[in-house]
Amino acid sequence: MVDILHRVGMKGATPDEVYAALTTIEGLSGWWTRDTTGDPGVGGLIEFRFGPGGFDMVVLESVPGKLVRWEVVDGPAEWIGTTVRFDLTQADDFAIVMFAHEGWAEPVDFMYHCSTKWATYLVSLKELVETGTGSPDPDDLKISDWH
Amino acid sequence: MVDILHRVGMKGATPDEVYAALTTIEGLSGWWTRDTTGDPGVGGLIEFRFGPGGFDMVVLESVPGKLVRWEVVDGPAEWIGTTVRFDLTQADDFAIVMFAHEGWAEPVDFMYHCSTKWATYLVSLKELVETGTGSPDPDDLKISDWH
Repeated sequence: MVDILHRVGMKGATPDEVYAALTTIEGLSGWWTRDTTGDPGVGGLIEFRFGPGGFDMVVLESVPGKLVRWEVVDGPAEWIGTTVRFDLTQADDFAIVMFAHEGWAEPVDFMYHCSTKWATYLVSLKELVETGTGSPDPDDLKISDWH
Repeated sequence: MVDILHRVGMKGATPDEVYAALTTIEGLSGWWTRDTTGDPGVGGLIEFRFGPGGFDMVVLESVPGKLVRWEVVDGPAEWIGTTVRFDLTQADDFAIVMFAHEGWAEPVDFMYHCSTKWATYLVSLKELVETGTGSPDPDDLKISDWH
């Protein structure tokens, strides 16, 4: 099993503000993809859709200001059964997000791509929390021939 | 051992153009850090310096248009002995970079940070190759309290 790991910090923000961007349809559609629907509560299903496809996530855990965890139940074969977690903390003037997309079976080329793409979306999350405006799909940064 | 993996593609570029940005001081200082000195030939030592510190790399392999590989010989303790590789290929109109920073002993918090930071520098490499202008340190994107 291999994991994608990232860390970003939102200046002047609190973990509660980041948590809101991870647990509401309005927040999620403001940094990952505008085409986000579903139920972001624990046990709910969230449907994220992008130009090239999409992901269905079940919310496994949601602890205000601390943790959000999803399981991928539909999407690309390599994603199904993997989990995505956001651990939130405060460090001085920054809200810190420790991100992990865990449980990839193999480090396939698509995982390399998703690792870079997650970084750009986490920067989008940072921009959303800091400024009120992120860069969700379809306005996201295109990093290669793969989106 | 855990690895940081990324993939970016440069539109309208060739692997030879990316290779030049990885194997010349002018190229390296155009996307990673402006304070780059040393010998980028095989067996040479390249010294990369940033605000918070720096890395010394020995060039292990350098295959024109295909591969560049470095070993970290000085820098943060977690980096020493790890290796960095760039595999270059062509996919239609894109030069593709498969990037790996291999051999981290543990997924420490600093690795999470470096994973995201590498993504932003690879986007800088993409911009340099596509437009002639990257965003190397100190003009790089600051992603958190850690730089």
